[in-house]
Amino acid sequence: MKQEQGSVDDTQFSDMITLSHGSGGKAMRELVEQEIVAAFENPLLTPLEDQARIPLNLLTDFGDRLAFTTDSFVVDPLFFPGGDIGSLAVNGTVNDLAMGGAQPLYLTCGFIIEEGLSLETFRQIVASMRRAADKANVAIVSGDTKVVHRGAADKIFINTSGVGVIPRDVDIRANRAEPGDVVIVNGWVGDHGAAIVTARNELDVKASIASDCRPLTLEVQALQKVCPDIHCLRDATRGGLVTVLNEFAQSSQVRVVLEQSSIPVRPEVRGLCELLGFDPLYLANEGKFVAIVPKVYANDCLAVLKRIEGAEHAAIIGKIEDVDQKHPKPVVTMKTPFGSERMLDMLIGDQLPRIC
Amino acid sequence: MKQEQGSVDDTQFSDMITLSHGSGGKAMRELVEQEIVAAFENPLLTPLEDQARIPLNLLTDFGDRLAFTTDSFVVDPLFFPGGDIGSLAVNGTVNDLAMGGAQPLYLTCGFIIEEGLSLETFRQIVASMRRAADKANVAIVSGDTKVVHRGAADKIFINTSGVGVIPRDVDIRANRAEPGDVVIVNGWVGDHGAAIVTARNELDVKASIASDCRPLTLEVQALQKVCPDIHCLRDATRGGLVTVLNEFAQSSQVRVVLEQSSIPVRPEVRGLCELLGFDPLYLANEGKFVAIVPKVYANDCLAVLKRIEGAEHAAIIGKIEDVDQKHPKPVVTMKTPFGSERMLDMLIGDQLPRIC
Repeated sequence: MKQEQGSVDDTQFSDMITLSHGSGGKAMRELVEQEIVAAFENPLLTPLEDQARIPLNLLTDFGDRLAFTTDSFVVDPLFFPGGDIGSLAVNGTVNDLAMGGAQPLYLTCGFIIEEGLSLETFRQIVASMRRAADKANVAIVSGDTKVVHRGAADKIFINTSGVGVIPRDVDIRANRAEPGDVVIVNGWVGDHGAAIVTARNELDVKASIASDCRPLTLEVQALQKVCPDIHCLRDATRGGLVTVLNEFAQSSQVRVVLEQSSIPVRPEVRGLCELLGFDPLYLANEGKFVAIVPKVYANDCLAVLKRIEGAEHAAIIGKIEDVDQKHPKPVVTMKTPFGSERMLDMLIGDQLPRIC
Repeated sequence: MKQEQGSVDDTQFSDMITLSHGSGGKAMRELVEQEIVAAFENPLLTPLEDQARIPLNLLTDFGDRLAFTTDSFVVDPLFFPGGDIGSLAVNGTVNDLAMGGAQPLYLTCGFIIEEGLSLETFRQIVASMRRAADKANVAIVSGDTKVVHRGAADKIFINTSGVGVIPRDVDIRANRAEPGDVVIVNGWVGDHGAAIVTARNELDVKASIASDCRPLTLEVQALQKVCPDIHCLRDATRGGLVTVLNEFAQSSQVRVVLEQSSIPVRPEVRGLCELLGFDPLYLANEGKFVAIVPKVYANDCLAVLKRIEGAEHAAIIGKIEDVDQKHPKPVVTMKTPFGSERMLDMLIGDQLPRIC
């Protein structure tokens, strides 16, 4: 590491983060200015005030409602095929905004770091966040850094919060699924969960599965162009595809009926799940959403998605049906290739902790 | 704890938070709905979408710029005289917004919980957040909950992010201090740091000092009424009074000259500091700001502050002077009662880790 004369680093372990980096003093200022502001550099962040200041007329150009969301990331391990905690933290919050139909615009970033984390690891994570932010066309405009003593956290946790703007007349809600609507997923499901399992290396499984971690803004905007009235949209993160569909079923008081043979699952993910006793439909995704759209728009939605890189395997996987006397409960069921139908309930807990 | 038949709690430890509460499944939904949404209840949070949706015309009524900020809280212990991690998390972010002159409006809240935290402790913290939010007149509109395994975090960390709106023509910045300006603090300094030290009980000190944790919105608004052009304003949290003043000095390229005898420090805090070798001017505050205002408004500012509960001991503690050939550096100095002058540099690290 480059040493500047007289800098704090002369008197500290120069290659790791120490408690003094979270203290509000000179060491923190150096860390923030040299490692964080330098990486995220943008006109709103650089003044280092306690808050970013965004002209409201920049926002009103995009629509009529501010979308505001937060997510903390505790994924273990920090680096995995297809991503790392930094790209996950940016894309996770970008996607939470996009799922409301919003244009994601600005993010904040809060680090909680365990004393002793190597500065090199921190730099890699920050650089990854910058790349992800650039790719998603958002700016990280305010932040906070805390350092806790060894053993009080596990390496690093990242919170990102985000604001975006929802265009006028967009009204996407979990309670808008209607009988006759069609269920679309934008590609292979379960990749992120499978990537984390294999990256943990606990199970002695050799498989090369990459996380699908990526921003979904372009896909949502493409959908909005061909379908002026998307009913429901949610990214299938913790709890996977089935959990999101159960949320839609309960909120909308409808039944979701899936066709098992239509659900895209990579052969490697299917194989891993068979080996380990997981169900890919409950595995976390970080670049997959479920959209509920009126049937009349379904084919156009599918066509537009399939042209987008990463969504080539988008598929119509089911439909929305009414609750009735014969089927009084708002549940998710799946027709198997053998003609039977089984219920897919939400799990009590996830199959895997610290997946994101 | 009340048990509902068939609820998740039948199959879990009902009195503590487990990994399944952070999983995205039924257990998480129960925790979120019963413990968090029920406590924070408001129309923007209750739909439980991935993002809160705030009409922009509600914002433009308040001013012309969105203020957006984030802070993570890792304070140890969780509960201390005068506050707890919950009230700290709300007031900390409210104050970061208020320091830009903004009206604080909406907060998000991200929990990172260590498996095994008692549900009762969590409830107390959430209830405290609600009370603090009500007092500060903000709503908690979106959230996230992660649970990590035992030993991967220390009980609970909370991130709050916030948005507010800055009124037209308000322009408070760290680089606006001008020679001739006056330095005002809104009361006793060092209370929060002193409260945490004594609450930790490590030092076998018996003293009853309460944290000054509280929202500062009213005080800022009162200042704005009598002083149409506040130059600088910042809450003196980590690093205390001296750190904020050094930030102003460096950003504005001016000197800050303090009068030691004018700086309000509680006798108990002064005593504790003498005993432990701390300097109260570097101790963290959670309800104190430093304002730099043109001299012509100083007495009105002081008078209006002194009428507000909690700010009765507000004081003019110094002035801004130019850098010149004799004093070429933008530093903070303090005149002692003995006529000498000493430099108050930023510390490299804080005197105390995990103070907030």
